Amino acid sequence: MNQTHSKGGPEALPDDPVLVRLWRGGFVESQHRGAWCLVDSGDEVIDAGGSIDHPFFVRSSIKALQAIPLVEGGAAATLGFTDEELCMALASHNAERCHTDTVSALLTRMDLSVADLQCGAHVPGDSETRLALAGSGEEPTAVHNNCSGKHAGFLALSKHLDAPTSDYLDPDGVVQSLVRSAISDMCGLDADSLTRGTDGCSAPTYRIPLRALGLAFARVVEPSGLEPERSAACEQMVAAVAAHPILIAGSRGRLCTEISRVTAGRLFPKIGAEGIYAVAERGSGRALAVKIDDGGRRALHAVVVELLSRHDMIDDAESRALESWRQSDLTNHAGLSVGRTEVVA
Amino acid sequence: MNQTHSKGGPEALPDDPVLVRLWRGGFVESQHRGAWCLVDSGDEVIDAGGSIDHPFFVRSSIKALQAIPLVEGGAAATLGFTDEELCMALASHNAERCHTDTVSALLTRMDLSVADLQCGAHVPGDSETRLALAGSGEEPTAVHNNCSGKHAGFLALSKHLDAPTSDYLDPDGVVQSLVRSAISDMCGLDADSLTRGTDGCSAPTYRIPLRALGLAFARVVEPSGLEPERSAACEQMVAAVAAHPILIAGSRGRLCTEISRVTAGRLFPKIGAEGIYAVAERGSGRALAVKIDDGGRRALHAVVVELLSRHDMIDDAESRALESWRQSDLTNHAGLSVGRTEVVA
Repeated sequence: MNQTHSKGGPEALPDDPVLVRLWRGGFVESQHRGAWCLVDSGDEVIDAGGSIDHPFFVRSSIKALQAIPLVEGGAAATLGFTDEELCMALASHNAERCHTDTVSALLTRMDLSVADLQCGAHVPGDSETRLALAGSGEEPTAVHNNCSGKHAGFLALSKHLDAPTSDYLDPDGVVQSLVRSAISDMCGLDADSLTRGTDGCSAPTYRIPLRALGLAFARVVEPSGLEPERSAACEQMVAAVAAHPILIAGSRGRLCTEISRVTAGRLFPKIGAEGIYAVAERGSGRALAVKIDDGGRRALHAVVVELLSRHDMIDDAESRALESWRQSDLTNHAGLSVGRTEVVA
Repeated sequence: MNQTHSKGGPEALPDDPVLVRLWRGGFVESQHRGAWCLVDSGDEVIDAGGSIDHPFFVRSSIKALQAIPLVEGGAAATLGFTDEELCMALASHNAERCHTDTVSALLTRMDLSVADLQCGAHVPGDSETRLALAGSGEEPTAVHNNCSGKHAGFLALSKHLDAPTSDYLDPDGVVQSLVRSAISDMCGLDADSLTRGTDGCSAPTYRIPLRALGLAFARVVEPSGLEPERSAACEQMVAAVAAHPILIAGSRGRLCTEISRVTAGRLFPKIGAEGIYAVAERGSGRALAVKIDDGGRRALHAVVVELLSRHDMIDDAESRALESWRQSDLTNHAGLSVGRTEVVA
C-alpha cells in the first residue's frame, strides 16, 4: 500500500513514521504520522524522526520571526510598544479580553482601527470566550482573529516605514519583503528559494524544513551569534513572552501558554496550524520542531510534551504539570477509562 | 521511514495509502491515510483501497446493527415505538430539541428516566445547539449525549426481556449478547472472534474489517436473503431514516442527514467516531465503508462524497448538493481561496 513520494515535491508529503497511536482497550484504533527534530543554534541535529528536510508550511509557528523586523528596525520602540503589545504580535490568541483589549488599544494609539486589519473575522477558538462573545450579542470582528496582534504589528512596521498601510500583506511589498528576509536569514535559507502560500489570516506563509525551523527557534533563544539589533530583538521577544504567557495563547486550553508558564519562560513555544510546533530552550539553546502530517492537534500536543520530557527540556515536576496534554489516559463521557495515547516517536 | 505492521495485530494499523491531500497554494500541506471498500450484499468486493481486512473499531457506524434485536424480537412493536423513536436508536444526534424531546418522551413512556441512561453527559456537538443550551442555563445531561437514543433502545430491549435494566451495557448480559450476535451475523463473522473495546458512551464496541462492515450495510438495504423477522426489521429501520433524516444526525452540519435528505432516503448512511463511515444504497444493494486512520473528519467527509460520486451512488445533482462536504475549495477567514482538498483514493 505504500507510495513513494519525491522529497520536497508539491504533490505529496513524504512517508513519515507513526508518531502517535490511539489505543482503545487492547488495540490501536487510530494513528498519526509525522516528523520532528531537535537541533541546536549551531545547526547540529541532536535527534530526529521522519522527513526533517521536507519543507512544510510553518504557518503561525513563526510569528516571532515575522515580528523581528518590527523590533530590530526600531518601529516597536518608536511607536512605544509595551511588552504586552509585543506579545500580541507573536500570539495565536483566544480572543479573551486581555488579548482583544491590548490589540484594540494599540490600533487606536496608531490612529488605526479594526477596519485596517486584513486578517478577517472568526469566532474565538476558546469555547468559553466564544460563548461569552455570543452571549454579549457582539459579532466577532478582525480583532478576535487569533492573528490580530500579528497584523497590528505589520501595520506598525508599515507606518514606521511610511509605506501605505493597505499594502501590508503584499508579498512583494516593503513589509513582507523585510519579513521574508528575516525568516530566511534565521532559518539559514535563501529567501528566493522559499515557496509560498496564503495563510488563514491572508499573510504570506512559507514552506520551511523542520530542521531549519528548529534552527531559527534555537537562534531566537540563543541569539549571541546574530547582529546586535537582531540579537536584542530576540531577547526582547523571549522576555516579553516569559513575562506574559497568557498573551501568546490564552488562559485556558492552550499548550503554548502552559509550557511558558510551567517553565517560567525557560521554554519559548509556538504552535502553527496543521500540526506544526516549535519550542526552544533558553540556556541550552536547543529547539524542537514537529509536524503532524494530518494536522491533528491531539497528536501534536502529546508528541511535544513527550519529546520535551524525553530530551530533558522539562524536568519531572514540569512534565507532571503538563501531563494532561499527553492524554495518556482516555476517559469517556461516563468517566470510564477506555484507552490511551501512546507517543512512539 | 515505512514500518511493516502485522495485519490485525493490536500494536498498529496497517500501512494504508493516502486518501486525502490538503493543498495550500501549489503544495500539499497535510494528508490523511485510510482504507475503503465498496461491496455488495453477496460479499463481492467491487472496488477497494487500503487494508479492508484489518479490523477497525466501528463505533457508532453500526447503530443500525445494534438496534436489530430491538426490532426483530418484537420489543419495539410491543413498546409502541414510533418511526421517530426508532430513528433515535440509530442516531448520533446533535441534541436538538427534536432529538432530546423524542428520547425523553420514550423514556417516560417506559417508566424510565434520564438517570437510567448510562451513556454519560456531553455538550451537544452542534455549535448552535450548544450555544442555545448554555444560554438556557441548563447543564447537559445524558439525554444530550449523541447516543442517548441508542441507549433508550437498549433499555427498551432490556425491559421487553424482563432483564434488569441496570445491566444493559454488560457485554455478557442478555441485551449485549443479542446485539453482538446480530452484529456478527450481519457481518458474516464469528461472534466469539470479535475483539472488543468500550465506546465513548460505555457500550461495547467491536473491531470489524471494512469489508464485513460494508457487507452488513449492504444486507441492511438488501435484506431479502435474511430471516423474515430480520429482513422486516431492516426494512423498517431503513424506511424510518428515509422518512426522518434529521433525526439520525441533525438539521445542521451533519453529512448523514444531508446524504439521506439529498437522496430522498435511497442511501442509508452512518458515521462513527475516529473516521469511520458506512453508507448503503437501496436498489443496487451496494455499500461503501471507510476508515480514516487518523480519525480526521474533514478527510472522511470528502472521501465519502467523492467515492459516492465516483461509483455512481449519487447522480450529478445529488453530488452538487453535497459539494460543500468535499471542501474542494478552501477559503480563509478573509474569504480568499487558499487551497483545496483532493481525494486521491
